[in-house]
Amino acid sequence: MSDYTVRRLSMYYRILDELERESDDVVSSASLARMTGTNSAQVRKDLSYFGNFGKRGRGYSVSDLRERLRAILGLDRQWNVLLVGAGHLGSALFSYKDFAKRGFHIVGILDNDPEKLGRSWDGIAVNAISEAEEVVARTGAEVAVIVTPAHAAQEVIERLTRAGVRGFLNFAPIKPETTEPVRVRNVNITIELEGLAYALQHDELTRPSL
Amino acid sequence: MSDYTVRRLSMYYRILDELERESDDVVSSASLARMTGTNSAQVRKDLSYFGNFGKRGRGYSVSDLRERLRAILGLDRQWNVLLVGAGHLGSALFSYKDFAKRGFHIVGILDNDPEKLGRSWDGIAVNAISEAEEVVARTGAEVAVIVTPAHAAQEVIERLTRAGVRGFLNFAPIKPETTEPVRVRNVNITIELEGLAYALQHDELTRPSL
Repeated sequence: MSDYTVRRLSMYYRILDELERESDDVVSSASLARMTGTNSAQVRKDLSYFGNFGKRGRGYSVSDLRERLRAILGLDRQWNVLLVGAGHLGSALFSYKDFAKRGFHIVGILDNDPEKLGRSWDGIAVNAISEAEEVVARTGAEVAVIVTPAHAAQEVIERLTRAGVRGFLNFAPIKPETTEPVRVRNVNITIELEGLAYALQHDELTRPSL
Repeated sequence: MSDYTVRRLSMYYRILDELERESDDVVSSASLARMTGTNSAQVRKDLSYFGNFGKRGRGYSVSDLRERLRAILGLDRQWNVLLVGAGHLGSALFSYKDFAKRGFHIVGILDNDPEKLGRSWDGIAVNAISEAEEVVARTGAEVAVIVTPAHAAQEVIERLTRAGVRGFLNFAPIKPETTEPVRVRNVNITIELEGLAYALQHDELTRPSL
């Protein structure tokens, strides 16, 4: 399944989750398409990979489809997660409820700031990056969320890979180099923000004068 | 300039910013390439768009290059920003220092939760989404950071567009439909996280049994 398909399945899942909380029973492919910026044919095609959920002219059952997508996306199990970087964004992500809702449970925190070492967040100790191997072994962490400065990210990812971590959600603004079977997903908040600033600035500079 | 080029310029900028704080004077195209996952030829090509900053065999001046990129990316001016959505992630982004560092100043907050209305965060009032037009007019906001639930995002983006906002950093897991000259950048934390879960789950399911 392509990355694009997986991304659309994620979007459908989120929409279905919201519809279920609003007690909607049925949703049409047209509604799913509209809310995710695609078309009905694409929605029907994406969902047909997993069997025929919808009834022609009646739409999809919200709760059935939501449960199926949840299992397909691997969200019905728990992943033990290390948070690497205990700064502002790290702390924000620590309390980000959507992690836990998707089965990502933070079981350890790493940072190199002497001010933070030895503290604990909701009972989870902040350890030094030099203790990475021990923390991975103790917690069984398979996934790490990387919120370090850019220059530190590559090294810590390599170190955690050697320690057995095989999935990374990377918020540091680099594209880490990794080897199979390690999986990395990058979330670049500042890169999107700078791209937006560039586009707006460029619009102003090229706007015809009135 | 392509989106990809702008993204790489953002990465170079961030690296240079960090090198400057570490008091490094000079950086080679090879180092920049390594830290951003590209190659030296690409770095030199990207930077040559803006004149010849580097001296052959001596690398680039960190502070000169940083300043030039800062101006090119539109980060040397202030953008007035509305935060739409005062939940957990909204509150995390409100205190996210990298926004202010890049000239994105939050000047207004919108939410529809009656519990939040009338409160203020560091002196900035939380207004209802029904007051959007008034808040945009009062604050001169040009940019909005969207952290609403998925089902609410499209409507609020359309409303703010009509009110004069022309740039959106969208954290809601939808692809909003907009019309020129509006600019949108999407940051999909949960989509990356679900993509990662899917990939890890899929690896396990397809791993040859031992």
